[in-house]
Amino acid sequence: MPAWVLIGPGDDAAVIAPARGAVEVLTTDALVEGVHFDRRFVPPAAIGHRALAVNLSDLAAMGARPRAALLSLILPASLPIADLDGLMDGLLTLAAAHKLTLIGGNITRSPGPLIVDLTAIGTTRPRRVLARQGARPGDEVYVTGALAEAAVGLRVLREAAELGGFATRNAPAVDQGDDLVTCRERYLRPVPRVRAGLVLAGNRAASSCIDLSDGLADAARGIAARSGVGMILDAAALPIGAAARSWLEARGLDAVRTALSAGDDYELLFTVRPAHRGRLRGVRRQLGEVPITRIGVVTKEPDLLLREECGLTPLPSGYEHFR
Amino acid sequence: MPAWVLIGPGDDAAVIAPARGAVEVLTTDALVEGVHFDRRFVPPAAIGHRALAVNLSDLAAMGARPRAALLSLILPASLPIADLDGLMDGLLTLAAAHKLTLIGGNITRSPGPLIVDLTAIGTTRPRRVLARQGARPGDEVYVTGALAEAAVGLRVLREAAELGGFATRNAPAVDQGDDLVTCRERYLRPVPRVRAGLVLAGNRAASSCIDLSDGLADAARGIAARSGVGMILDAAALPIGAAARSWLEARGLDAVRTALSAGDDYELLFTVRPAHRGRLRGVRRQLGEVPITRIGVVTKEPDLLLREECGLTPLPSGYEHFR
Repeated sequence: MPAWVLIGPGDDAAVIAPARGAVEVLTTDALVEGVHFDRRFVPPAAIGHRALAVNLSDLAAMGARPRAALLSLILPASLPIADLDGLMDGLLTLAAAHKLTLIGGNITRSPGPLIVDLTAIGTTRPRRVLARQGARPGDEVYVTGALAEAAVGLRVLREAAELGGFATRNAPAVDQGDDLVTCRERYLRPVPRVRAGLVLAGNRAASSCIDLSDGLADAARGIAARSGVGMILDAAALPIGAAARSWLEARGLDAVRTALSAGDDYELLFTVRPAHRGRLRGVRRQLGEVPITRIGVVTKEPDLLLREECGLTPLPSGYEHFR
Repeated sequence: MPAWVLIGPGDDAAVIAPARGAVEVLTTDALVEGVHFDRRFVPPAAIGHRALAVNLSDLAAMGARPRAALLSLILPASLPIADLDGLMDGLLTLAAAHKLTLIGGNITRSPGPLIVDLTAIGTTRPRRVLARQGARPGDEVYVTGALAEAAVGLRVLREAAELGGFATRNAPAVDQGDDLVTCRERYLRPVPRVRAGLVLAGNRAASSCIDLSDGLADAARGIAARSGVGMILDAAALPIGAAARSWLEARGLDAVRTALSAGDDYELLFTVRPAHRGRLRGVRRQLGEVPITRIGVVTKEPDLLLREECGLTPLPSGYEHFR
């Protein structure tokens, strides 16, 4: 345990010393079996990884550095101990990668599904907080990483589970090679954009920021609502992964709509003042390989619109979790 | 929202400024339908109250002042909106009574039982932290309040629910008056001993402290294990409520064993050095009507023993949640 943990697990509560000069960023998010994951094709380690990743993604969206977490486990009696060990391994491996300390928790049995509920705590400087509020008309809209890959990964995994074998067996003859491995990994072990959030905050490059846990359309709506603005997103600009696009199109599915509405992409959506493009260049240099794509513009009118070849249409609403 | 809440609910995470000069005390605890409560006889407001009370009791055991909480709600689709409103009312009423601010949370649906999972955050001074560790041989063992009342309240409520009417109908002719109302209230709306914890910590009267959420025997074991000591508890000294005792004895149930093993008594068990009896007198003066009863002594030998008329026997183990 780090020195700032005065009392760790094993007492009625944990006791920690706050980080000097910092403000604290706190979030809670739960993964529920049958709603957010399916144990048939999500291995225990991936459940633990994802449960922490969704919380780290929230910290990332605020520009916070992960520090501590409390874990609340709701366990069905049928869960094998080996699965619990695997879950903890996945969770603690990701925690270690982000220097996050598990300071406490609670375990209870349940007659229902497996639930992994986490509270994550991060730190930042008061003037570096990223928030949903702050976007202004004329700001440019950016997104990190690639879209729709996790959604395709989920579908590939589910098909494989339902066929009792490999998803490729009865599927159309499109690219089923290593690119779909990437999609599966993006679903099973999403990489929360903690470093991107820290660098965006450190460079004061973003006027607003949110994560994409519930899909791009939902995220755009989140910034728009809190900032009192609208947005036009450019369909052609969306950074949809090539393998994901081929897979979707081979099945007659609309890649743009999938990218807009599918959850599980733990990327960051953020806005940048035109005058701060130089700061964004600094962010790109520091982040190196993380793709950052301009996908739209903030508008004064509060509508959320999608620009396609045929013109402007309302942004599709809603997202879907695993069903 | 208080000024220290820089960003409250509605963003990716909450942002708060730490209290100056304080350390933070954090705990998480979940109430699961069918394990910790039964919706047939626990009204929604009592579910909300209890979910917060169990967390406040953990803060109390550390001598912490409640400050903030994050709420994670796992809701079955069948839950009526009115029940959700009632649950929130019960939770927020208790929060207001303790000046605790709900700074964030998460709601998700579930195919399983209703679960109310909370993370509570309190503050204290570094040198005032109460912990399970710290008891020394010769210290005296004390408990707040009355024991077994919540356990009787639960049984009375369950009998009433199972009979579809009032528990008194087919029950033995013992006192069924207002005293059982107290028992029911103690189960439905336990009063976490927040003030007692603060006063014990402020007077530096306790050498160790724990709450009784999982029963007195379990609590004694918790202090003993962390302090590397044993305890002898005096059966005749246990402050078992009179109505609870009559109700149990009329049914041939052992009141002492119920008091030792039943959960849901959210009292504090703590130890006091003989030299600090004067500090404890100060605590009693400040707390006024809260009963504080000496029930045993800390021993060097690590055994947990119960002193009865017939001699010393091992302390019964385990506790039982609602079944």
